[in-house]
Amino acid sequence: MTISTALDALSQLLGQRLSRSKPDLDQHAASESYYPPAPPDAVAYPDTTEEVARLLAICTEHGCPVTGWGAGTSLEGQAQAFSGGVVVDFRHMNKVLEINAEDMDVRVQPGCTREELNTELRTTGLFFPVDPGANATLGGMAMTRASGTTAVRYGTMRDNVLGCQVVLADGRVIRTGTRARKSSAGYDLTGLMVGSEGTLGLVTELTLRLHGQPEAVTAAVCAFPDMHGAVQAVIETIQMGVPMARIEFVDAAMARIFNAASGATMPEVPHLMVEFHGSDAGVREQAETFGQIVADHGASGFDWATRPEDRTKLWEMRHRAHWSTLAGAPGKRALVTDICVPISALARAVEDTAADIADSPVNGPILGHVGDGNFHAILLFDPDDPAELDAVKALSHRMAERALALGGTCTGEHGIGIGKRAYMQAEHGDGWQVMAALKAALDPHNILNPGKLVPQAG
Amino acid sequence: MTISTALDALSQLLGQRLSRSKPDLDQHAASESYYPPAPPDAVAYPDTTEEVARLLAICTEHGCPVTGWGAGTSLEGQAQAFSGGVVVDFRHMNKVLEINAEDMDVRVQPGCTREELNTELRTTGLFFPVDPGANATLGGMAMTRASGTTAVRYGTMRDNVLGCQVVLADGRVIRTGTRARKSSAGYDLTGLMVGSEGTLGLVTELTLRLHGQPEAVTAAVCAFPDMHGAVQAVIETIQMGVPMARIEFVDAAMARIFNAASGATMPEVPHLMVEFHGSDAGVREQAETFGQIVADHGASGFDWATRPEDRTKLWEMRHRAHWSTLAGAPGKRALVTDICVPISALARAVEDTAADIADSPVNGPILGHVGDGNFHAILLFDPDDPAELDAVKALSHRMAERALALGGTCTGEHGIGIGKRAYMQAEHGDGWQVMAALKAALDPHNILNPGKLVPQAG
Repeated sequence: MTISTALDALSQLLGQRLSRSKPDLDQHAASESYYPPAPPDAVAYPDTTEEVARLLAICTEHGCPVTGWGAGTSLEGQAQAFSGGVVVDFRHMNKVLEINAEDMDVRVQPGCTREELNTELRTTGLFFPVDPGANATLGGMAMTRASGTTAVRYGTMRDNVLGCQVVLADGRVIRTGTRARKSSAGYDLTGLMVGSEGTLGLVTELTLRLHGQPEAVTAAVCAFPDMHGAVQAVIETIQMGVPMARIEFVDAAMARIFNAASGATMPEVPHLMVEFHGSDAGVREQAETFGQIVADHGASGFDWATRPEDRTKLWEMRHRAHWSTLAGAPGKRALVTDICVPISALARAVEDTAADIADSPVNGPILGHVGDGNFHAILLFDPDDPAELDAVKALSHRMAERALALGGTCTGEHGIGIGKRAYMQAEHGDGWQVMAALKAALDPHNILNPGKLVPQAG
Repeated sequence: MTISTALDALSQLLGQRLSRSKPDLDQHAASESYYPPAPPDAVAYPDTTEEVARLLAICTEHGCPVTGWGAGTSLEGQAQAFSGGVVVDFRHMNKVLEINAEDMDVRVQPGCTREELNTELRTTGLFFPVDPGANATLGGMAMTRASGTTAVRYGTMRDNVLGCQVVLADGRVIRTGTRARKSSAGYDLTGLMVGSEGTLGLVTELTLRLHGQPEAVTAAVCAFPDMHGAVQAVIETIQMGVPMARIEFVDAAMARIFNAASGATMPEVPHLMVEFHGSDAGVREQAETFGQIVADHGASGFDWATRPEDRTKLWEMRHRAHWSTLAGAPGKRALVTDICVPISALARAVEDTAADIADSPVNGPILGHVGDGNFHAILLFDPDDPAELDAVKALSHRMAERALALGGTCTGEHGIGIGKRAYMQAEHGDGWQVMAALKAALDPHNILNPGKLVPQAG
């Protein structure tokens, strides 16, 4: 019952596709989180669900930890094997298996990325909307319950995974959900798996909901004198039922970084970036209504982008926020925070956070998915300066506590991993113990991503 | 460790609010399902979460079964105490606790009905959209993962419960979810509770998502030569992204019943009933697009209802389908089926079902939520004629098998209870055993609605 006997059996199963080479271990040691590298003992590259099932049966038998790996873009250490054992990299299982255009769903393997899927869908008139910025794998996005800029309109992974095939710790393979749009047939196992960060099973197939490519799209950016007006404008827009497809907030610091990185000429004040999807007339009407509302809240510098290339430029700038911020601060690393609050509390949460950062020795632009009440600060620190790391950790800690005090959550979309376990008791109370009981029921030997999400055993 | 010692302790706790009177037991013996009456040993009327917690701790200690009761409108026996014990009737816990208009959410007690909630919301500009027809309690609707006519636009209870307060079998009280719109903080316990039919805990509070009352509403009914054209029209409408608020199908038999019950003059052929919500211009555009699509599929007799009273009449007729069907067949009872399939398979599922009913000795109109692929046959039988009961059960059985063969589910919105347990293994495979493991983890003494949803213990 050791990792090494497990690896011998896995070598028999996978041959060359169980790697113990240093480059492979190093490549899977660190994700985009700020945690120190943690190389696994081996990396497995399964080709089939059957191989994953046999792999998990072996690992359960030998007590060998198993951590799933998609694109390594998770931010809370979910993909890092801090307990050693085997990392299961799904890069070989990256196919689009079946597109059902009439039913607007698709069956994919977990290693397929969202960009790869949308490329395959291009000629169907359909698209997969969940967009966390990074070109993450769909399996990874399901496991962290990812969302991003379009969640305000199209929902998160919770809303867009119709079902999955899951290999349980003991090697049993189950299918959750059906291709029907809804069901009342028992516990929502799909919903339980989505967001479980590989602690309850490894997902080997996903059935995803697709959406029609909108007939018309228009995007805009506008400047606000302060955060409060921007948030109130968003609240009113939502209450009027205007279906915004994206509605993003960036603060003055972020506008400055965009200007430096992209040659944009945004005024260095808070901005909203918005996008509407619909018919030509519908989009026009939505844009007009929105224009009136934001004008009432002091917005200026309204700039509409209806040409695809202008919209692409706008959203690329937004999507590259993380990298632009790092590029503008050579030698720094980033701790990216991720809190989500009721939207009525959003202005206060952002303003208090901005003041807190201003009072600290570090920098951190703020941006977020304002329609969901979710925002991030990209807190910059010098990895060789323990005082800066302490400062960003303290800021992040106060943000999480602020979110909980305002009735929100410590993570809107990045997940728990190891980074947010400290807030689970405060956020869930005995509910966290319930999660532990569910984990123990499905993974009694605690081989699936141990040390993540649930309380430490023992 | 008997039910009777539990009831002694519960009498101490609740006084007069633990009833063992025959009228009370009889009133809680039968729900709207076709199952025979099953009176509990007692009915409890708790006033507070704390009382529910003490009640459950007592029942776990004494091994006394506990079944939750809202309005008794469930159709698969969920609210019936087939194992005896205590039925917990939530009629005293029926308050709207807190309306957050800016955040578009509301906190309610489980005994509040959807109509009571919408009455309280009337002046806020907001409404709660999930509408199963019956004036069910919101707690009951959450527990069966109810949906109904508006799910195509606003989602089911899965999508509209943001969080809940749950008392576990051992009396611990947990809160699931937060008031934030989304979260990645661990397993989705809210989603696990929604649809759990009182087998994992008793819900004592719900936080629900609200929606803005639409500026404009328009509804219409139109006739089709056959089912196939109606379904294809709906598929095209969905693919074009037209946001239908309701889209209902009724067959020729149902149209005949509507005419008899409501004095309507519908042609006795298949119909679609549709409703659009939006701005004035948006609704007009949606209606025009829809009108063109259905015309391409042979629709006729298009009749738009924009006046509220005309719309009310239309939807009352639809909502009273169940009762109108029974009223038109004195002495009969109804077994209401509830399957849901991928929409591409819907025409076939309905046509095969209609042919199957036509070949049987019983009658049964068909109607359904065509945008979700979900439909019902209201199968009529004489309760004193075992051959008719056998015939409707056989029809219902073949419908469930048909749904599974087409990639669908044995229940779109009515749930499992005792009625659909027979299909759980076929629908979920080992996933059903996973449900049993989750149930055992949270309710090891199996006191919560025993005999429902999961495999029988032992």
